[in-house]
Amino acid sequence: MPELPLVDAIIQYTKENNAPFSMPGHKSGRGFLETTEGKNLYDNFIKGDITEVEGLDNLHHPEGVIAEAQKLLSEFYGSKKSYFLVNGSSSGNLAMIFSSFNEGDKVIIERNCHRSVLNGVILRKLRPVYVKNKFNNIYNAPISVNKEHFLQVVNENKDAKGIIVTYPNYYGVCVNLKFIIKEAEKYNMKVLVDSAHGAHFGVCEGLPESAVRLGAHMVVMSAHKTLPSLTQTAYLHVSDKADIDRVDFYVSSLLSTSPSYMLMASMDYARFYLDKYGKETFESLLSTANNYRKKINDIGFFHVISKKELIENNLSGLSNDIYDLDESRYIINIPKGYSGEKLLMYLRDEGIQAEMSDESNVVLIFSPFNHEEDFEKLYQVLCKCNIEKIKNEIGSSEIIICDLPNIKLLPYEVLLKEKKSVKFEMSEGLICAEAVVPYPPGIPIIMPGEVYSDEVIKAIKYYDKNKSVVLGVKNGCVKFV
Amino acid sequence: MPELPLVDAIIQYTKENNAPFSMPGHKSGRGFLETTEGKNLYDNFIKGDITEVEGLDNLHHPEGVIAEAQKLLSEFYGSKKSYFLVNGSSSGNLAMIFSSFNEGDKVIIERNCHRSVLNGVILRKLRPVYVKNKFNNIYNAPISVNKEHFLQVVNENKDAKGIIVTYPNYYGVCVNLKFIIKEAEKYNMKVLVDSAHGAHFGVCEGLPESAVRLGAHMVVMSAHKTLPSLTQTAYLHVSDKADIDRVDFYVSSLLSTSPSYMLMASMDYARFYLDKYGKETFESLLSTANNYRKKINDIGFFHVISKKELIENNLSGLSNDIYDLDESRYIINIPKGYSGEKLLMYLRDEGIQAEMSDESNVVLIFSPFNHEEDFEKLYQVLCKCNIEKIKNEIGSSEIIICDLPNIKLLPYEVLLKEKKSVKFEMSEGLICAEAVVPYPPGIPIIMPGEVYSDEVIKAIKYYDKNKSVVLGVKNGCVKFV
Repeated sequence: MPELPLVDAIIQYTKENNAPFSMPGHKSGRGFLETTEGKNLYDNFIKGDITEVEGLDNLHHPEGVIAEAQKLLSEFYGSKKSYFLVNGSSSGNLAMIFSSFNEGDKVIIERNCHRSVLNGVILRKLRPVYVKNKFNNIYNAPISVNKEHFLQVVNENKDAKGIIVTYPNYYGVCVNLKFIIKEAEKYNMKVLVDSAHGAHFGVCEGLPESAVRLGAHMVVMSAHKTLPSLTQTAYLHVSDKADIDRVDFYVSSLLSTSPSYMLMASMDYARFYLDKYGKETFESLLSTANNYRKKINDIGFFHVISKKELIENNLSGLSNDIYDLDESRYIINIPKGYSGEKLLMYLRDEGIQAEMSDESNVVLIFSPFNHEEDFEKLYQVLCKCNIEKIKNEIGSSEIIICDLPNIKLLPYEVLLKEKKSVKFEMSEGLICAEAVVPYPPGIPIIMPGEVYSDEVIKAIKYYDKNKSVVLGVKNGCVKFV
Repeated sequence: MPELPLVDAIIQYTKENNAPFSMPGHKSGRGFLETTEGKNLYDNFIKGDITEVEGLDNLHHPEGVIAEAQKLLSEFYGSKKSYFLVNGSSSGNLAMIFSSFNEGDKVIIERNCHRSVLNGVILRKLRPVYVKNKFNNIYNAPISVNKEHFLQVVNENKDAKGIIVTYPNYYGVCVNLKFIIKEAEKYNMKVLVDSAHGAHFGVCEGLPESAVRLGAHMVVMSAHKTLPSLTQTAYLHVSDKADIDRVDFYVSSLLSTSPSYMLMASMDYARFYLDKYGKETFESLLSTANNYRKKINDIGFFHVISKKELIENNLSGLSNDIYDLDESRYIINIPKGYSGEKLLMYLRDEGIQAEMSDESNVVLIFSPFNHEEDFEKLYQVLCKCNIEKIKNEIGSSEIIICDLPNIKLLPYEVLLKEKKSVKFEMSEGLICAEAVVPYPPGIPIIMPGEVYSDEVIKAIKYYDKNKSVVLGVKNGCVKFV
């Protein structure tokens, strides 16, 4: 074993000098180096990694420069109050859930939610009711929520205290948040939005509207995913409907009392960048992305999905359900029989870092620090791709979308019971003790308290075979109670 | 308001070029720059701020380089399993509490515990029984736990499920952890140790023994406080008595699913540094600190407390209670009538950053990256100090140590009730709704559910007057239910 396994691997990775089409949004530091203000910060990051000394305020009791920076953040996004989160959107999701709901509350949750939301459901002892996500058979990917199904769930659960929505999802697809908020308000339900991938929304015309501006009760955004901010940074925005004292308590409880000034400074900078340069640079990015989408689509094998065809062309009769698409990322779709995973590996071998893949798609996330050279490199590499090499050897298979499993126990009730392991093929009829979540895209196949079914087992087998990281599966075994 | 309030303040601070006697342990980057391996990491920190790409493993499902790095960490400290925490010791304290105790459990807690432990008590709905801390009248500081008092609390609460101890405290004073563990084992109580300030313990002979080696059930250590690691990094060590599945779940729930590779890499490096260089460099540090302690004490006004006088000389009959003192930090004690806070400000004006102050002391934290130049600068600055300037103008006052307030409600019961505000002078008899914690040193005066007394009010007044940051007090008001 090397003496510094993680350090060595990271340094090795940086030497690859890949075109950065993955998170974080600063793209190997460019986001700092390309402005005077950012360069100044970049040069002082480590030296400025300091503790709460006089003049630098205290995140858990802000009265000075941190209070000012959070005020500017709040003004920019149009919230009642905004918070710097040094523990990512995960901590924001937990803080939203803990401060908005009480134990035993029924909450409507999009099944396609982040793992941290599901952890929140367990820790806060909520009674989840799930809204299924719709699956697009043409693109072989989960895309949005069916309006009729959503309305049905709401109507059957008018006693729910709130709705938790992902906006946008990992693919950049946005549900009709305005519509959801309008429905929720009829029954006095709160709408909490995991907008981890939407911190840049609303900064220019071509992008979807920001979840805060659409009137959500509380919104979490990752700063690092699409903005020039360090990994693990996020913003929490609350509206005037929230109980600020409760939010203060839970946010503070879930964040280190030794918060990193590097992380906090990068969040201050990211807001500044968006405010000062964002409109122009994101417009320019969208224009470049648009040009290269056409060029890539002209190659004839790869297909980058556009907002127009997904929404305006009313593909699969989905126009009612999809609200918008973030075109500052690419979903590169490939024909059935080919492997998204292999395409991602091919790109990496050719010096291009994509964000993630599923069987039929590779997702690339851009920021204004991806310039034309990056896109041109991507285009050239796709042009010369030997498609024989990215064939799906194990045979193409339809992605397995299982129905929501039956619920036997609430998620938190499972936590105290003794857990056992079983080969997942043998789990039918048993009660799940640990969520099974393929990563990416991070949508749970089964949650604690739900019952393993034949369908669930098939879905686990699908992801296991496709070599995704599948949380909750270890040596082919899953946990049950 | 400036456009970048936090960034500007940090950059301004770095320009002061203070001798770094505060956290973090890398001391303005020196801890990386002074070794070949660290320099290599330093040069790649921002470029290496990347997401979970192929080859870099996944903190929430470690099977590659992160698993290897955590294994080396575990081997070095002698634990059953060790974890990288990217959300500080705060997240480790919560994870220890959640995985070790169930709701309603009675737990014995040193009152001098960190705020995150108290948050854990609330969130986990524990029934806390507090052990008072002993106060040293000569040094005007809280120092340890009285053995008889401790035994009495244990004997009266044999049904407690565990004991939570701070080892060492902010001043470097160590309770007799070996004794506490032996007592706890008699009643099958778990011992959880907040060793945030003790990550370097045991690396050379002059330092106290590591809490892990002493047999604690679970131990949290801040990597950033005394080791060359970035702020907000911590280690969690668990023994073979812990339920690893539960620990895995809670650790994962409390950490960002986008953990910073910068933070993780610095934790890998800090363990490596300690293993490869720690014995020699900490020995050298202790020797330098020892020499300068004598020189500073010879000045005649300042008094740096030594292990010998605190323990061996049996000051105040405390020999039974104190186990050890970490001499890799200074408690600079000054005579009554002078202000620790003013001394800290004087040092800062002269280019020396201390860690914290109370009325009678200034605490400085060292690491092997504080070389003789730093100590010499400190010595010179103390030599030329005009002691008239650090007189306590508001008149010296005995620090107010109030007895533990009466408990009317359990901490978590308070959380759901409506809170009101009142001037703290008017709070007598009311039930506290929000902990009042002077920072530093972070010891709560009153906890939610406890009753404001005349003594409590005097203690709040004391800290308010002495200009500490007092969490829970806003515009002279405290919260009650």
